[in-house]
Formats: sequence, structure tokens, C-alpha cells
Amino acid sequence: MKLHWSPRSPFVRKVMLFAHETGLVDRLELRRTVVAMTKPNPELLPDNPLNKIPTLILDDGSSLYDSIVICEYLDGLHGGAKLFPEEPKAYFTAMRRCALGDGLLDLLILWRNERERKHPDPDYLAAYAVKFDASLAALESEADALAATPFGIGHIAIGCALSYTGFRFPDLEWRPRHPKIAAWLADFSRRPAAVATEARDG
Amino acid sequence: MKLHWSPRSPFVRKVMLFAHETGLVDRLELRRTVVAMTKPNPELLPDNPLNKIPTLILDDGSSLYDSIVICEYLDGLHGGAKLFPEEPKAYFTAMRRCALGDGLLDLLILWRNERERKHPDPDYLAAYAVKFDASLAALESEADALAATPFGIGHIAIGCALSYTGFRFPDLEWRPRHPKIAAWLADFSRRPAAVATEARDG
Repeated sequence: MKLHWSPRSPFVRKVMLFAHETGLVDRLELRRTVVAMTKPNPELLPDNPLNKIPTLILDDGSSLYDSIVICEYLDGLHGGAKLFPEEPKAYFTAMRRCALGDGLLDLLILWRNERERKHPDPDYLAAYAVKFDASLAALESEADALAATPFGIGHIAIGCALSYTGFRFPDLEWRPRHPKIAAWLADFSRRPAAVATEARDG
Repeated sequence: MKLHWSPRSPFVRKVMLFAHETGLVDRLELRRTVVAMTKPNPELLPDNPLNKIPTLILDDGSSLYDSIVICEYLDGLHGGAKLFPEEPKAYFTAMRRCALGDGLLDLLILWRNERERKHPDPDYLAAYAVKFDASLAALESEADALAATPFGIGHIAIGCALSYTGFRFPDLEWRPRHPKIAAWLADFSRRPAAVATEARDG
């Protein structure tokens, strides 16, 4: 399988972290693919017309996206503990956590783009801050439950989203106000799969 | 179950269309919830800190989002034909189509917001146009396969995304260049569940 990949994309990191956790990383042939919101990459468009990474190309030439779909596909390829829960209540909790992590990442990427515009819109900036604060407060409330749930896809989505704040938003300083989820993230970040996939420039 | 709902949101429409298709619409108590990118709604934030609709509130008070997670939850509540395929290959094809439909909707909403800014960025506008054209070309290539697949969640995501162009982008005029997917959309739009949930202002 080929993976359109970049070392800086937090959505790609979800897939790589998943592959490390499940022992599948050697099955992925990484293809360095550069994308930017305003620069569609013509080599990626045939595999994913939305021009997003990660995009997985299966051996039959068909493609899969987005990151959560790729992770669920990978979960069927290994014999270890499944990272998508099978019991319905646990499954939907994990899926809601995935949507929160992914939504938070989408928000952070839009926020970063807004900051870098020639004419940043103060209404957008203010709305991103409100939603970020609400998300961190929700995660702080959920930190104990998160820590008590067997590690899985929900943890990966939330961990990759929160880690991205350190990479691209060092000024946010949310940790002192949200000590429980900060401690959870510190544990998450010590996992070998997290260390192996830490975002880096280059 | 309560659903944070609006008659204009294309993501809400996915859930409503799904509920009509599966006979579950009477189980949903609709709560009119107004959201805008730059106006977080304080009544929604406790149920969904990302401030997005649809958000479903279960009878135990917990919430579920986003639209695809809600649809998958609803698929477990009815006794008819499942709209999430069970066979893995069909399932992942449907999930990839969902990601394409949802990604296209995200793109259209960002595009519309960009057009309405005081200082629209021409690089963003150009990138949205490129991705939209690539997505329509991909859907045109896939139109026969889409029509041949049993109706399900992938169809709902793509149908709701394409319908949104008619509601908010009447100037795009993509149909003459993409006749197969335009014909598929016309069939989709005649389904009773599609007619019952058509977007409207008000």
C-alpha cells in the first residue's frame, strides 16, 4: 500500500501513529506529498480530488481517505487488539471522540491560516478562540474517562489534535488551565508510537 | 432523542434524509439551532464544543456528532436494509464516498464564506475552484458505479453535497460538463426522503 504522506501533517500522523501501534508501519510505502490549502498538488488530485493527505492507495489502485477511514481499514489488517471498539456503546464514544479530535484539528488549521492572511478577520479569530476554549473545557471534563478507556482510535484523534497545538500554536498555553487533559497528553506523548511520529519541520 | 437542527444546513440534511429513508424521523425531536462560522451559539457549546450541527442528544444526555457518526448510530435503530454496508469492500467504498461528499461540502462552505469576506483571497478562491472541478470530474467517472451500488450512506453524502451547489452556488453550472453525475443527482433528488428534506431558507 502507498500512502501520500508528509512529516508535518497532523492528519497523516494519525495514520502513522495507528500503523505503529498496530505493527503495520512496514506495510506502508510512504510517498512524500506536499499540499497546501491554496496550492492543489496535481499529482495528488487523481487519487484524492479534495487534495488532502493522508490518502492511501491500495494494491488494486483504488484509493481510500480520509484519515479515519484509512485507520479503520488498517484495523482489519492486524491480529492484535482492535483500536476501533466492537461493543456499540464504546464504539460510538470513540467515534464521537474522533469527531472532536478531527474537528479540533480542522479548527486549528483554519485558525493558523487565518492568522497568516494579509487581512485576518477578527470575527473568525474570535470564533476560533471560543470553540478552542470550549473544546479544551470539554476534554478536561472527559480526561478521567479518556484515561480509563482502553487505548484506541478516539485517543489517537484527540492526542494528535492536542499535540498540534504544541507544534503550531506554542502561544496558546492551555495546559495550566486544563491540568487533567494536559497530564493525559503527556502520557500519550510518551507512547513509542507517538515518539516515532512526532511532527517535525523538514 | 433530540437533534440540534436547521432547515438550511446540508450536514443536518444528511441526518434527516437518513432518518426519512429508515423510518426513524418520528424518533427525532428537532431543536432549531442557529450556528454560523463566526457566531458560536452558547446553547450548543455544552453539547458540541465545536459548535456544529447536526448534534444528537441521546436519552441519557450524552451527545453524538458529527453527521456520519449520527447516521451510523441511527442505522442500528431500525429493522430495514442497512445503509452502512456490512461487507468490507462495499463498506470502505461507501466510507470513501462519504469522505468525498463531506469534504466537498466543507469546501463549498469555506468557498461561500470566502466569497462573502470583505477581502476575499484570490488564491483561496482559485484553489477551491480547482478542487471542486477535480471532485466533479471524479464523481463523473464514478457515476455508473454509484448508480449500480445499493443505495446507502455514500449516496446520501454525495447527494447532499451536490444538492448544496444548487442551493448556494447556482452560478457554478457544473451539470453540462458532468452529465452522468447530473443525471444521478436528478434521480437522487426525486427520492421521497430527498424531497422531504430539500434545503430551504426560513
